[in-house]
Amino acid sequence: MKPLIFDLDQIKNSLKNLDPIKSIEEGFIAYSEGRTVIPPVGELLFKNPPGDAHIKYGYIHGDEYYVVKIASGFYENVKHGIPPGDGLMLLFLQRTGQLTGILLDEGYLTNVRTAAAGAIAAKYMAPGKINRIGVFGTGVQGQMQVQYLTKITPCRHIMIWGQDIDECSRYKEKMENLGYSVTPTLDPEEIAENCNLIITATPSTKPLLKSENIRPGTHITAMGSDTPEKNELDPLILGKADLIAGDSLEQCRTRGEIFKAVSTGEISMKQPVELGNIVSGTIPGRLSDDQITIADLTGVAIQDIQISVAVFNDLKSKDKGEV
Amino acid sequence: MKPLIFDLDQIKNSLKNLDPIKSIEEGFIAYSEGRTVIPPVGELLFKNPPGDAHIKYGYIHGDEYYVVKIASGFYENVKHGIPPGDGLMLLFLQRTGQLTGILLDEGYLTNVRTAAAGAIAAKYMAPGKINRIGVFGTGVQGQMQVQYLTKITPCRHIMIWGQDIDECSRYKEKMENLGYSVTPTLDPEEIAENCNLIITATPSTKPLLKSENIRPGTHITAMGSDTPEKNELDPLILGKADLIAGDSLEQCRTRGEIFKAVSTGEISMKQPVELGNIVSGTIPGRLSDDQITIADLTGVAIQDIQISVAVFNDLKSKDKGEV
Repeated sequence: MKPLIFDLDQIKNSLKNLDPIKSIEEGFIAYSEGRTVIPPVGELLFKNPPGDAHIKYGYIHGDEYYVVKIASGFYENVKHGIPPGDGLMLLFLQRTGQLTGILLDEGYLTNVRTAAAGAIAAKYMAPGKINRIGVFGTGVQGQMQVQYLTKITPCRHIMIWGQDIDECSRYKEKMENLGYSVTPTLDPEEIAENCNLIITATPSTKPLLKSENIRPGTHITAMGSDTPEKNELDPLILGKADLIAGDSLEQCRTRGEIFKAVSTGEISMKQPVELGNIVSGTIPGRLSDDQITIADLTGVAIQDIQISVAVFNDLKSKDKGEV
Repeated sequence: MKPLIFDLDQIKNSLKNLDPIKSIEEGFIAYSEGRTVIPPVGELLFKNPPGDAHIKYGYIHGDEYYVVKIASGFYENVKHGIPPGDGLMLLFLQRTGQLTGILLDEGYLTNVRTAAAGAIAAKYMAPGKINRIGVFGTGVQGQMQVQYLTKITPCRHIMIWGQDIDECSRYKEKMENLGYSVTPTLDPEEIAENCNLIITATPSTKPLLKSENIRPGTHITAMGSDTPEKNELDPLILGKADLIAGDSLEQCRTRGEIFKAVSTGEISMKQPVELGNIVSGTIPGRLSDDQITIADLTGVAIQDIQISVAVFNDLKSKDKGEV
């Protein structure tokens, strides 16, 4: 059997017909209900130049497919005019093991499913009225996380923090072209003061925000930290939060913000809940407008499974139609 | 960057120009010298119908590529006229993480690199003169292991053991068409009595051979057992062997014949040596014609890396030539 192979243009076109937030909500529920098989993430690290490749894979019991996703991140690529990320998603039939689909998404679907997870976290955990969206990081996720919030909140005001003014200006120009108003800052405190929905989307290994600056009624989605080394939030922030949710508590034991706060003793692993249990209603999300809530997103294979199956089924049906 | 994609026909054509045994010898040496990064095998298991998928991946320090191989085995497929194995190999650039090549080999390259490893084991460990090749298992590896021995020994006499006479007859017909003389048997003892090079290539979970039947001067390559459950050799055979080599001692700790013999206490993990160290000459192979030697092959990502890089570089050079 020859696999069907689709490229990035076809994948982007297909996404116009789809609702990734809904697909990934269903995935998080299946994951938290234990209806999935998701082995630990496979990882390759490189030093010179620095880079990493992650292999995320698994399946939902009873589904048609199992999925293997490979995504790379080589941040020095940008110096040479090459995108930092690349990758693909592979779909195999659960009944025969046959390779049935290849999505040459160049890492794009990883960006989509990550942004969709941020929107889901905000939907169930952010305060009812978002005044301003604070964003750390001017990269792809700094942009896409905001774009996927469109379905969750009418707020179009962004405060952006970057490493320098040039970076912030480029972000401002891009996002204003998309209809947002953007205020740049180099001072993290300003974000904490002005924004009640904050997204951290950096590869930082040092906390970006201080605990004393976080006001009641703030939700933070930390999605940049996906290794044991990376760290965007001061563990004290998790210590004072009213609600902490992780996308996968199993992964959060070994990487990300929850891992950091547990290893410094600010919280115990008993405190965080799993996002899928909030989505399903098994565990309540935000209870009042003055709670401090935190979502720690490390990126789970269930997101890759859901987004790739949705895109592949859509493209396959068209492909057959054209024959 | 669009990856170059090659299909099975192109891959089979390319192999005519290549020497997989040499490539994989170099790979085993690099592996045993610690010049590789090979994480533990990724695995997905399925129950209904039974099947498995293995992800093997890694790289040689300083090489151009890193490789991810996915291969599935669903043995009930044959009932429906579908091949039991499928898979592909992916090549990424170590300097940028970009996906540069996709080999849609449908599991074939896994068969080639496995058969080549068997030939390497025989080259360094089998007695000088092979009288007859004993084969357990009439499947693809039962055939390919023998074919790859062509470069190692002039012996063309096979004794084949299968589960029934029909299976053996089909094997006999195929292999006689390729110029071998084939004697079928349903009695494992006959193989032990008549063959001084024995290959076990079955998915058996119970030992095929009894220790008391193994004569001095016998070499056994056990390549069927690649999970903790599978087992082709009575642990007592390893207990009486003069030399035991594993393709990867790290993998042999948790799966295959060495694992089984260590867990029953017949041998300790100090006894087996690594095949790459025999190939490099660091450790001697067979010392005399009356030794009993055993190679335990669990299948290592270095084989996938070496075979895919050899095939891809060959096909890529032709592809450019045609543009």
